Amino acid sequence: MDHPTETLNKTDALMRRYGHAELPMAGPWNDTIELLLAHKSIRAFRSDPLPEGTLETLAAAAQSAATSSNMQMWSMIAITDPTIKSEIAKASQNQKHIEQCPLFIAFIADVSRNQRVGARAGTALPVLDHFESFLVASIDAALAAQNAVIAAESLGLGTVYIGAMRNDPRRVADLLGLPAAALGVFGLCVGYADETVTTDVKPRLPQNAVLFHGRYGVTSESTLIDAYDQDMGAFSKRHEMSDDTWTKRVINRQSNIKNLNGREALIDILHAMGFGLK
Amino acid sequence: MDHPTETLNKTDALMRRYGHAELPMAGPWNDTIELLLAHKSIRAFRSDPLPEGTLETLAAAAQSAATSSNMQMWSMIAITDPTIKSEIAKASQNQKHIEQCPLFIAFIADVSRNQRVGARAGTALPVLDHFESFLVASIDAALAAQNAVIAAESLGLGTVYIGAMRNDPRRVADLLGLPAAALGVFGLCVGYADETVTTDVKPRLPQNAVLFHGRYGVTSESTLIDAYDQDMGAFSKRHEMSDDTWTKRVINRQSNIKNLNGREALIDILHAMGFGLK
Repeated sequence: MDHPTETLNKTDALMRRYGHAELPMAGPWNDTIELLLAHKSIRAFRSDPLPEGTLETLAAAAQSAATSSNMQMWSMIAITDPTIKSEIAKASQNQKHIEQCPLFIAFIADVSRNQRVGARAGTALPVLDHFESFLVASIDAALAAQNAVIAAESLGLGTVYIGAMRNDPRRVADLLGLPAAALGVFGLCVGYADETVTTDVKPRLPQNAVLFHGRYGVTSESTLIDAYDQDMGAFSKRHEMSDDTWTKRVINRQSNIKNLNGREALIDILHAMGFGLK
Repeated sequence: MDHPTETLNKTDALMRRYGHAELPMAGPWNDTIELLLAHKSIRAFRSDPLPEGTLETLAAAAQSAATSSNMQMWSMIAITDPTIKSEIAKASQNQKHIEQCPLFIAFIADVSRNQRVGARAGTALPVLDHFESFLVASIDAALAAQNAVIAAESLGLGTVYIGAMRNDPRRVADLLGLPAAALGVFGLCVGYADETVTTDVKPRLPQNAVLFHGRYGVTSESTLIDAYDQDMGAFSKRHEMSDDTWTKRVINRQSNIKNLNGREALIDILHAMGFGLK
């Protein structure tokens, strides 16, 4: 049986996450799940340094995530130097939080380490030339990074992912001294949130639009998206100076390839960076 | 200041994760971080059903992960039907834990939902035809799945990712009724661990082989991998009936494309499944 306060927390957490459209069943609950549900991206940081050893704890959490066949084809580079952070910000649409956060972590989809393992043993590793290896490296970097995010949030820190680190991967590779077959696949800002800047949990699509049972289904999708559009319109009006619905956001962002800011050439760039994508 | 028991837990957790080669600094610590560090993949499950609402809680955790520009290009399909689980197991190298676990979740890199949003609005969304959109969908599915894994483990459940779900993506798409531009990117078994089967935390590469400061570096890599090879050799001997080092594992797995079991054709299959990968 849940305690009354637990039930309150649970309902409150679900309402923040799903807006008022349609709440999913409130299942098992605990403090860890409450932490996960309360996630919000932080884009304004205090300059306070992090406690000693924080980076090492985040890295240990990251390395504890599953990795395909234990191949561990990812790396992380911690950047605290203001000059380098500023150069990465310039290459990433001038996102000021990259400069502001005390710790920026570049996550690397890293096929190069295993290439070196093969070279040292004098053995060709043709699997590494396949697209599957790039995909595994990217997915494993994401699993690792998400563990680092959970660890950071459990320590009272805020984070935001930087997908714009893919806008100009060769510039990022130069800045970080990456070998061939290593991509800065995304970044992560870490620091204490500047609490003078209001943020709130962002509602997501109703659970039934994303979670299916047995088979994929779209029969109620339009209705669910309509309800979400209303919620996101209200959320945007409160927080983001426009009152765009989710549908409008999707269309604004995905109807014009200019919004890819360089990422429209990503697959060609990956070839040029030495990834075999067979 | 840490409590004495906390320091013990921390050192113990770090030693399990990193073997005896080289322990990283023991930074800030708490119960959540202890949970993350204690991860181990589970491949033998009891048949016990999960508490009511477990799936919905895992989905709420998954949806709480960050998603690029809130585009939410992923979905999850819960599979409990033994016949479908058995067919997915057949398509995934006959991994028996897929049949054994009470809940199998297929995570979908799902570009199709946003395609439908554009179609409904009568607007072309050319961004979706770019490789970047496939990559975002795969990464966001991974961030979401890792949150589900953490939630499951916090509830005392075990999990294992199934990358072999990419061996025959069109068969999986048929089984799950996926539309075009939707890939079952990996699966996840969820259930109570069969505790008669011994498992243990698997050591990872020394932290200094994966975490860099400011710039990528390989100067001490060979030494670090040699130390890890010793540790993994000993771990394998204790747990896995062979005493292969990590180097040997990498070479065994990645020197022969037969080990890709169909995934060597993945990029062509993705094209055939309706992903634009421009």
